[in-house]
Amino acid sequence: MDDTVRQHKYVLTEDQMPTTWYNIMVDLPTLPPPPLHPGTREPVGPQDLAPLFPMELILQEVSMDRYIEIPGGVLDVYRQWRPSPLFRAHNLEKALGTPARIYYKYEGVSPAGSHKPNTSVPQAYYNKKEGTTKLTTETGAGQWGTALAFACALYDMECEVWQVGASYDAKPYRRLMIEAFGASVHRSPSQLTDIGRQLAQDPRNASGSLGIAISEAVEVAAKDPNTRYALGSVLNHVLLHQTIIGEEALLQLAMAGDTPTHIVGCTGGGSNFAGLSFPFLREKLAGRISPRIIAAEPASCPSLTKGVYAYDYGDAAGMTPLMKMHTLGHDFIPDPIHAGGLRYHGMAPLISHVYEEGMMEAVAIPQTECFAAAVQFARTEGIVPAPEPTHALAVAVREALRAKETGEETVILTALCGHGHFDLAAYDQYLRGAMVDEDFSQDRLNEALATIPEVAGV
Amino acid sequence: MDDTVRQHKYVLTEDQMPTTWYNIMVDLPTLPPPPLHPGTREPVGPQDLAPLFPMELILQEVSMDRYIEIPGGVLDVYRQWRPSPLFRAHNLEKALGTPARIYYKYEGVSPAGSHKPNTSVPQAYYNKKEGTTKLTTETGAGQWGTALAFACALYDMECEVWQVGASYDAKPYRRLMIEAFGASVHRSPSQLTDIGRQLAQDPRNASGSLGIAISEAVEVAAKDPNTRYALGSVLNHVLLHQTIIGEEALLQLAMAGDTPTHIVGCTGGGSNFAGLSFPFLREKLAGRISPRIIAAEPASCPSLTKGVYAYDYGDAAGMTPLMKMHTLGHDFIPDPIHAGGLRYHGMAPLISHVYEEGMMEAVAIPQTECFAAAVQFARTEGIVPAPEPTHALAVAVREALRAKETGEETVILTALCGHGHFDLAAYDQYLRGAMVDEDFSQDRLNEALATIPEVAGV
Repeated sequence: MDDTVRQHKYVLTEDQMPTTWYNIMVDLPTLPPPPLHPGTREPVGPQDLAPLFPMELILQEVSMDRYIEIPGGVLDVYRQWRPSPLFRAHNLEKALGTPARIYYKYEGVSPAGSHKPNTSVPQAYYNKKEGTTKLTTETGAGQWGTALAFACALYDMECEVWQVGASYDAKPYRRLMIEAFGASVHRSPSQLTDIGRQLAQDPRNASGSLGIAISEAVEVAAKDPNTRYALGSVLNHVLLHQTIIGEEALLQLAMAGDTPTHIVGCTGGGSNFAGLSFPFLREKLAGRISPRIIAAEPASCPSLTKGVYAYDYGDAAGMTPLMKMHTLGHDFIPDPIHAGGLRYHGMAPLISHVYEEGMMEAVAIPQTECFAAAVQFARTEGIVPAPEPTHALAVAVREALRAKETGEETVILTALCGHGHFDLAAYDQYLRGAMVDEDFSQDRLNEALATIPEVAGV
Repeated sequence: MDDTVRQHKYVLTEDQMPTTWYNIMVDLPTLPPPPLHPGTREPVGPQDLAPLFPMELILQEVSMDRYIEIPGGVLDVYRQWRPSPLFRAHNLEKALGTPARIYYKYEGVSPAGSHKPNTSVPQAYYNKKEGTTKLTTETGAGQWGTALAFACALYDMECEVWQVGASYDAKPYRRLMIEAFGASVHRSPSQLTDIGRQLAQDPRNASGSLGIAISEAVEVAAKDPNTRYALGSVLNHVLLHQTIIGEEALLQLAMAGDTPTHIVGCTGGGSNFAGLSFPFLREKLAGRISPRIIAAEPASCPSLTKGVYAYDYGDAAGMTPLMKMHTLGHDFIPDPIHAGGLRYHGMAPLISHVYEEGMMEAVAIPQTECFAAAVQFARTEGIVPAPEPTHALAVAVREALRAKETGEETVILTALCGHGHFDLAAYDQYLRGAMVDEDFSQDRLNEALATIPEVAGV
């Protein structure tokens, strides 16, 4: 009976915690195309980004250093919850009857409940250091808004968040959590910005989108010299900060004496996926390991599997630089019944490039399959996952069941990037049998794709 | 600027995790009076408790071993989140401008979000071992119900929870969390039990009470030989399991090189308080340290500061043994506007006895003072506390401010026994200025005190 429940946690000491972030740019065979100025269509320079970001982050965005030192002041805050644990999912494996070994890196231990503080803390740190007194941002399901509010509370900065309307309505506790940390939250589209007022006139924008919320937050930041903007995913420096996840996991899998055959992460803008997988991709490019690297995206917002690879805006209003990325079109709005996050119309340029180079795969998962995996996970492993990582869990379950059939040696590593404490209404819907899969219309996609600007010479 | 935010976490390795629970009974100068059978009024024997609890827990209830070994199967599950961290609250200290050093032991890192799995796991473990297939229980604010559902999920047992009506209505996400783990939840008083149907006829019981919910859960367990009952606090074996909190904290404070002058814990039934303080009380009784030990209870349910020390029932219907304890009367119902947990009419007999012996103090705190401390804590330390531990935080703040005036050497240890992710509606109420302090009526108390049975010879 003592082996009914087995928990294996692989723990690093604080001394073993990585002290650098990993910049994959240096190890790629080719560099991704540069972002372009929305007006001139020339590559953007540091001066173009200076109104929005502190210089240290702008330099990280284009750095060609392989490793970037994590400042002591950031490490000190990371240690509140890091190193985060790696678990072997013994009980899930047993329930699936699979010979596969499944590991999950759990980022829900952060006070904000997700992986997002890995970047909100350094972003707030560098901003504070350069004199910023207030940060603005967007948030979808709310993990990023919570993480930035948390970081701003610690650094005693103001924080103003525009939350996608659909999530603002569906997840009131998220807003309250952000407010508990002292930040303010607005439903987007709001009446507080020019762009919000303008876009709110189109009824199709009523439920909001990340692209709209970004436009609003950017507009406010651009108007005040002491206010800057913080993005929770997509950009190189954000992906960079998240690599501490994969660096730790590499050490922890070594402790477990295991080598992954599958690295599976969920993708919205891509920061959690990149954070988990890039350090392993480095090892793969160096020929030391050879795992499949798989992005799991929602069927309702499938930028990798159904988007095009093109220059597009990062926001709905076309205020941001043009980025070469897999995109569904910058005014794409996923089916509002989609319960989780991962609602961004584009994929991080760096991940898009890696995907184009054939170094990874992608698969789109409908939400009922995600929640089936989530409930099985909660009832075997004892942790209720956020909807986002359940996309990766669903793929892990698929691969574990395949291993059962084929008998192939299978070692899956996934990132459980957050807990589901603020997403229980979606669990309720699933458990009551009231959840249906998201609608995805090719017509709607075509309409959105038609909004992608033509950029000469690409 | 690097010292703007300081985080000190004191971490034990898994090898340093205590492998025994501490039984304070052995070290007390006198033993607490025994529980009495509700019918015969004779001390209860193991056979009286056998329909409700597995034999191993009944033996722990009366054990006179100083240390009780934690089974390997329980340690294995504890390691999912234990050893839990001890933090120095540098940022809170700075905000208060106090010379006091404040430490908090954080139990919100458990998957259920509180200290409760420290006992739900062994309770499920021993039950499973003795063939129980289903557990019933009560829950107030929901921490205990969540913890038992979590443990039952891991051990693949059924779990049925009666939740106090007021909390069931105010905290829907708690119910959903319990259901996500696969347990079922009923609003108490329910129509599913004889006692529920009977008590529901009195409109004063509409919002429920822990005493009523206990009666319902006990009734169901008593009727089925494969079903047993689990209690989340009050009993000796529950307090015993929680001592791992204090045992770890002792080791961690030694790592910090510090000696506490104040141990402050919140009290409802008393399990978190006992778990934190009893190992320190052992050291105090042995003359090695001399901290003040302070229980912080809600002004709306002040069993230590306004209750009487008498034999009373543990539940509303008088089905449980009579326990000598500080009690407000077994049909006492706290003001429903009270936002947190800590709603039990009585105090653990062991804590009541320790209090009577003059080994500890108690103080009652109104809820607006609790939430003021909670918000200050969230915005400095970055963790949103559950309402329960904010009672202790409020006392810690009082003592830290006192130290600022007197200059007395002050080292405060408190237990942050859970996070507030399911309590954000109360934060919202506080932040909007809509929270008022609980009403406490002496007339209502007198009425409830009048229901305490007379027990001859005590």
